Amino acid sequence: MVRRISYPSAEADAYLQKKSFDDVQVAERVAEVVANVRSRGTAALFEYTKRFDGADVNESNFRVSEAEIEAAYSQVDPDVLAALRRACENIRRFHEKQLRPSWIEPEADGTMLGQLIRPLERVGVYVPGGLASYPSSVLMNAVPAKVAGVPQVVMATPPGKDGSINPYSLVAAKEAGVDEVYRMGGAQAVAAMAFGVGLKAVDKITGPGNIYVTLAKKQVYGTVDIDMLAGPSEVLVIADESATPAYVAADFLSQAEHDVRAATVLVTPSAALAEAVEAEIERQLAVLPRREIMEQALRDNGAIFIVQDLEEACEVSNRFAPEHLEVLTETPFALLGKLTQAGAIFLGPYSPEPVGDYFAGPNHVLPTGGTARFYSPLNVDTFQKKTSVIAYSKARFDRDARDIIALAKAEGLDAHANAVAVRLENKEG
Amino acid sequence: MVRRISYPSAEADAYLQKKSFDDVQVAERVAEVVANVRSRGTAALFEYTKRFDGADVNESNFRVSEAEIEAAYSQVDPDVLAALRRACENIRRFHEKQLRPSWIEPEADGTMLGQLIRPLERVGVYVPGGLASYPSSVLMNAVPAKVAGVPQVVMATPPGKDGSINPYSLVAAKEAGVDEVYRMGGAQAVAAMAFGVGLKAVDKITGPGNIYVTLAKKQVYGTVDIDMLAGPSEVLVIADESATPAYVAADFLSQAEHDVRAATVLVTPSAALAEAVEAEIERQLAVLPRREIMEQALRDNGAIFIVQDLEEACEVSNRFAPEHLEVLTETPFALLGKLTQAGAIFLGPYSPEPVGDYFAGPNHVLPTGGTARFYSPLNVDTFQKKTSVIAYSKARFDRDARDIIALAKAEGLDAHANAVAVRLENKEG
Repeated sequence: MVRRISYPSAEADAYLQKKSFDDVQVAERVAEVVANVRSRGTAALFEYTKRFDGADVNESNFRVSEAEIEAAYSQVDPDVLAALRRACENIRRFHEKQLRPSWIEPEADGTMLGQLIRPLERVGVYVPGGLASYPSSVLMNAVPAKVAGVPQVVMATPPGKDGSINPYSLVAAKEAGVDEVYRMGGAQAVAAMAFGVGLKAVDKITGPGNIYVTLAKKQVYGTVDIDMLAGPSEVLVIADESATPAYVAADFLSQAEHDVRAATVLVTPSAALAEAVEAEIERQLAVLPRREIMEQALRDNGAIFIVQDLEEACEVSNRFAPEHLEVLTETPFALLGKLTQAGAIFLGPYSPEPVGDYFAGPNHVLPTGGTARFYSPLNVDTFQKKTSVIAYSKARFDRDARDIIALAKAEGLDAHANAVAVRLENKEG
Repeated sequence: MVRRISYPSAEADAYLQKKSFDDVQVAERVAEVVANVRSRGTAALFEYTKRFDGADVNESNFRVSEAEIEAAYSQVDPDVLAALRRACENIRRFHEKQLRPSWIEPEADGTMLGQLIRPLERVGVYVPGGLASYPSSVLMNAVPAKVAGVPQVVMATPPGKDGSINPYSLVAAKEAGVDEVYRMGGAQAVAAMAFGVGLKAVDKITGPGNIYVTLAKKQVYGTVDIDMLAGPSEVLVIADESATPAYVAADFLSQAEHDVRAATVLVTPSAALAEAVEAEIERQLAVLPRREIMEQALRDNGAIFIVQDLEEACEVSNRFAPEHLEVLTETPFALLGKLTQAGAIFLGPYSPEPVGDYFAGPNHVLPTGGTARFYSPLNVDTFQKKTSVIAYSKARFDRDARDIIALAKAEGLDAHANAVAVRLENKEG
């Protein structure tokens, strides 16, 4: 069922090449939604909510009330709530390790230079909704924002037809410390958060969404910051003959159930393993729901690369730059230094992707489509910004003034040179 | 000459509101350039270089040769070169303090979690050119990239009509460790770097440019990462009666000489200071070149806010979120904790903006137009990316498996639950 691709080959080059986010037709429709929400405000926002989500939302029920959030606690399975709380704690602990202090370094002549690292003030978190519920996405966005110190974390999630929000998402929001929850989704929600329609505008929008949400994030980029542009999910598994075929097969299927566009890639020097994995896929497929989605994903976007050795496996993986990279080899850590392009690396037999998706602590919002070459997992830095500090002493200024004047004049900026010269001449200062 | 704005007021609200990067007409022209370079390759790239820069560039002279770079050393003023080298060293030292190690934390049950922090592989630096020369921009982009460990730093800068590149830019590139220099500018250069036209595609594009460059960066965002979208330069000065009017005036003028769209703002509780500054502006203007540009900038975009006290001055400054913020008060550090929104903060009488523009070490590529609320100065993080590491032990996996299965099932993802369950059942693992 899964395509075999030899390496190196033209077919491999085509499969491994960068994906792109172009979809001009969708972009035009999204631009219209964004422009309408910006110009016509909540009237347009609520119209789109009715049209796309089928829900009646207005000023009175737009923001989810505290009472509704409290009520959600009685609707969720207590075991799931307990698991969510433990996940929340793991995510908090992992992200706290990323915190860095501001620093200012005083130098002997009295000069002080430094870098202030401070939280953003107001962040909007997008959480997909509708029929499905993604409490894990709530935690993965909101907990790092709170660890970073963001005082105002806002969440937008599309309502069901009856206007309701999934109770798991609401309890996750409460546990993570989300400050405001709004009933809205799609491109219209992104526009509302960016331009301050129905709520105070945010400084940054994070979180996964469909192609409409993603292209809306691109369009408002610059008015606000965004985390990344994300496409369909992917897993690449590097495995040798020591790997358990049933594990690799299960991991393929867990990726494939997301979406027919999800990509599942096995890179192995062992043809025997590849065959055993394919047999296991057939066996496990038979007893799982979502079979059609998984089969189509595997057929359309799956691939198996038989490579010379693990060295070449790392090369293929780096070229693909996968969102999720599993290493199921005898000594997985031996490859870690070579695996330079990946969102998250899962090492060994007991680290299947769901461990990271839900629980271990590292973030599950990860770069896709080869963008791990430049994007990072959501992290504490995502929710902070820096400010440089420059306090020159008179001694340092006197020493450096002529260099600064020379450089300003070389760039033809005389008033810049003057701003230095006036301080050299002036005796009052 | 400079408008007085009272605070709070509707006029102040209008002046302080977020700027936006919308320019639909320019965006359409830029989209055409980007699409043409992408589809027609170097033929389109060289046509645009001829049309916009007036220069004949082709495959044979597109990349600047080592000989040309070496020759530039004989064309520059040795004093300026020496100053550039000292600036380079300061920038390197400041950015080295930002380096962070990767970390992996082993836990008692054998689990290892961590975060790898590694350089991008290939970065494109845009440096404005044409008539002007900006060696300082070369240093401010390329040095942090090299400190971050980027092995391939590429520079694009538009040639003069005769095809030449300013020698100061070339020596700065060499000093900073730039690996490849290309003769190209504008939206076409951004497209060429993003899509790999005439050179290998880069992973990220940084550096300042005009509105064409900026909108092209927005359009290729997602195919590559970018540093930020930057608009006209700004300075906001918080000063009290202890400030020297000649300094404030000189700093206003050094900002205003950049561009008629540059913004210069004084926020002070002292009406006497404001008057003295205005008188000084007139006096210094008389002897500086670029007088027309400065006058228009001050008239169109300058502002003086007379506020109650320094507390209110900080409030105005945070709302403006200036690129450059100067604090010329008796005890400038006393305000630092309150000034939460700024690209760079210059404290005291001997820290005029040119100290940071050229020499001190902190970066001069800074967020503008209120984007200091979410963007940071260019820094080492700009040129690195992160990868999460998850290696669960069997003990940890056995402990957490039921929680993970519960969470996967609550999200309706049975194949995710299966990927965990199959490892619990399987005795071989």
